[in-house]
Amino acid sequence: MSDFIKQLNEEQLTEVKRQMTIYSQGVQEIIPTEELKNKVAKSIIENKPLKIKLGLDPSAPDVHLGHTVVLNKMRQFQENGHIIQLIIGDFTGKIGDPTGKSVARKQLTDEEVKHNAKTYFEQFAKVIDMEKVELHYNSKWLSTLNFEDVIQLAGKITVARLLERDDFEERIASGKAISLHEFFYPLMQGYDSVKLECDIELGGTDQHFNILMGRHFQERFGKEKQVALLMPLLEGLDGVDKMSKSKNNYIGIDESPQEMYGKAMSIPDELMVKYFELITDFTPEQIQKVKEDLKTGVLHPRDAKMLLGKTIVRMYHGMEAASKAEQHFVSVFQRGTLPDEIPEVKWNGNVDTPVINLLVDLQLLNSKSEARRMIENRGVKINGDRVEDTNLKVAITDGLIIQVGKRKFVKIKR
Amino acid sequence: MSDFIKQLNEEQLTEVKRQMTIYSQGVQEIIPTEELKNKVAKSIIENKPLKIKLGLDPSAPDVHLGHTVVLNKMRQFQENGHIIQLIIGDFTGKIGDPTGKSVARKQLTDEEVKHNAKTYFEQFAKVIDMEKVELHYNSKWLSTLNFEDVIQLAGKITVARLLERDDFEERIASGKAISLHEFFYPLMQGYDSVKLECDIELGGTDQHFNILMGRHFQERFGKEKQVALLMPLLEGLDGVDKMSKSKNNYIGIDESPQEMYGKAMSIPDELMVKYFELITDFTPEQIQKVKEDLKTGVLHPRDAKMLLGKTIVRMYHGMEAASKAEQHFVSVFQRGTLPDEIPEVKWNGNVDTPVINLLVDLQLLNSKSEARRMIENRGVKINGDRVEDTNLKVAITDGLIIQVGKRKFVKIKR
Repeated sequence: MSDFIKQLNEEQLTEVKRQMTIYSQGVQEIIPTEELKNKVAKSIIENKPLKIKLGLDPSAPDVHLGHTVVLNKMRQFQENGHIIQLIIGDFTGKIGDPTGKSVARKQLTDEEVKHNAKTYFEQFAKVIDMEKVELHYNSKWLSTLNFEDVIQLAGKITVARLLERDDFEERIASGKAISLHEFFYPLMQGYDSVKLECDIELGGTDQHFNILMGRHFQERFGKEKQVALLMPLLEGLDGVDKMSKSKNNYIGIDESPQEMYGKAMSIPDELMVKYFELITDFTPEQIQKVKEDLKTGVLHPRDAKMLLGKTIVRMYHGMEAASKAEQHFVSVFQRGTLPDEIPEVKWNGNVDTPVINLLVDLQLLNSKSEARRMIENRGVKINGDRVEDTNLKVAITDGLIIQVGKRKFVKIKR
Repeated sequence: MSDFIKQLNEEQLTEVKRQMTIYSQGVQEIIPTEELKNKVAKSIIENKPLKIKLGLDPSAPDVHLGHTVVLNKMRQFQENGHIIQLIIGDFTGKIGDPTGKSVARKQLTDEEVKHNAKTYFEQFAKVIDMEKVELHYNSKWLSTLNFEDVIQLAGKITVARLLERDDFEERIASGKAISLHEFFYPLMQGYDSVKLECDIELGGTDQHFNILMGRHFQERFGKEKQVALLMPLLEGLDGVDKMSKSKNNYIGIDESPQEMYGKAMSIPDELMVKYFELITDFTPEQIQKVKEDLKTGVLHPRDAKMLLGKTIVRMYHGMEAASKAEQHFVSVFQRGTLPDEIPEVKWNGNVDTPVINLLVDLQLLNSKSEARRMIENRGVKINGDRVEDTNLKVAITDGLIIQVGKRKFVKIKR
């Protein structure tokens, strides 16, 4: 690839710098930065958009804010005129796990793949403009490969290189079996980039190895190499583990405004800036301001977090819902109705529990009849909402606040 | 597989033992012996022949006695009514080396594969009855596999298991690259056994790993496992390296009776019995007798070697040619025309050398004109044959004896 930077005039150079500032925001690693800069320059000189690839596993279509770290970055490219290539990894999905050992990798039917893809798209539409996206199903090219093609592909990579992948290395070291077919997942991901001539591939840092496979195979097939753009992994509400459904530390982008806002308020203070950087539509300048205002004390951490909660709700439910969620929070949690310190109670029972049982089990009331009477007398609130129905089933979540009468409060710890 | 041994009557048991004695003769390893015995028992009880597999590389069709070690073993199975499955590995041959690094593995055309196969068959016909052989080209099933099939196949083997293969292990240890496609050669060989439901696979000890792949994949595909029957590798005429064309220490089965006989006489004494065991059609009893007679001194090693030479020529050219070759040898090398000790001269020059130059280079004569005169005077013999043509080009082989006049002899050492 020739040096397009050198061919830029001053105005164009400013534009490259502007885009680079945006794309670099919050990124963990760009491999290599100079090539990204050159590709942006090329797109300006040739007036041709770059192709930005994102591969999707069709088996887990529930999208939470952890996923939007990458989606937000894609949106930035899209807003600058570049093309998003979404690749549904349906070929892998349809194969499942040939060893039959992994439950997670169950074989998907065509219908399931389509349904899951549709679920993705509906959710993605909240972040990126799906009208402008290129959609690809990789079975289109992978299912046409025969044994000879596969051998030609396999001839372009060494066993040693594949064994360098962290999880393979760890499993070899600990004597855990790697089935040979597992070596093909990175190969497929790399080959997708060859077929689609991707300029940039986005992913979390856990995709480091697989995304570099794209560069490797593009080079071996005589194509221009893609740039790897690796985003940090977003810790979940617990501030410890990567946000995921299985850890129940996530904010789903389909959740109600009130849930979203409430969960956002439970993020540890030290993660706030990272959330602003990675999952909001704030510009680099806006983020810089939040950082500075927090540092100088102009912005109180609680207010910053409320801004974050409101921003998240606005992004997924609009301005009106965001304002309402904020008002609700203020009225319940701030307008003096809650004591400063609420005792926490560990909950090990069922996730869905009848409100009557809950009140007794938490020892807020002494008997089911007493509990029923208290509800009928409008004396029970959950997260500030009065309980009207004595048969209500409560979905127990972390941080849920239960109030009985004027003074009794507990906060659920799960 | 049930225990067929238990179902045998006494006569059948004797037959199983008889066959096992033959099949075990000269074998390096049977994996496992009990299964082979049981398979032979089954073939007797069910009156169904066993399927004996031999895979052939279509890129190197020149057959020498080293190859007949396995062919002779196949012949024994054939003589007992079992079926030989010859598999031409044309699928691999047509792919060649996808990395383009190995010259040996060049891509073969359909015509080349067919021509090479035909060359094999013509030569094999000297050892086994080609009329009764099942012929298979593995491209028939391997070329129909698609990527999904390949992944299913790859899911049935672990990376660790493949890395156990000696040459892979050594290359990993010494930091030499293994291309991923190389992992597929043992898989293909194993899958061939699945498709053909082979009972026994024959090969040299260097095929240990690949032949066990057949057992592995047959088991993973729910089939009866084949038995591996591994033959020792035959050292060549130098008594050191495995017989091979590249080492020029071989006896080709297409060579002339005189060449064959002469080369056989150059085998080191300590290898004689191994040659009788592995490449002649001698029965176990006959071999036993040779061994004993050599031990007791009844048989002189030179006479044993002459018996070996005559046997080899008889097997590939018939009895008459064998007798003639013997007579020729006796007349030239034994009828008092040769001294007991002939000085050996190391030859590092060209393989094809004009006789005049040869005589001068060996310092048998002082000048080219002197050498020319000596030939014209009928004073030069090579291996007992008088040289008539002063322009003769001599193909220099190990053990070639050059005589000038009555008393000057040298033996070429290569």
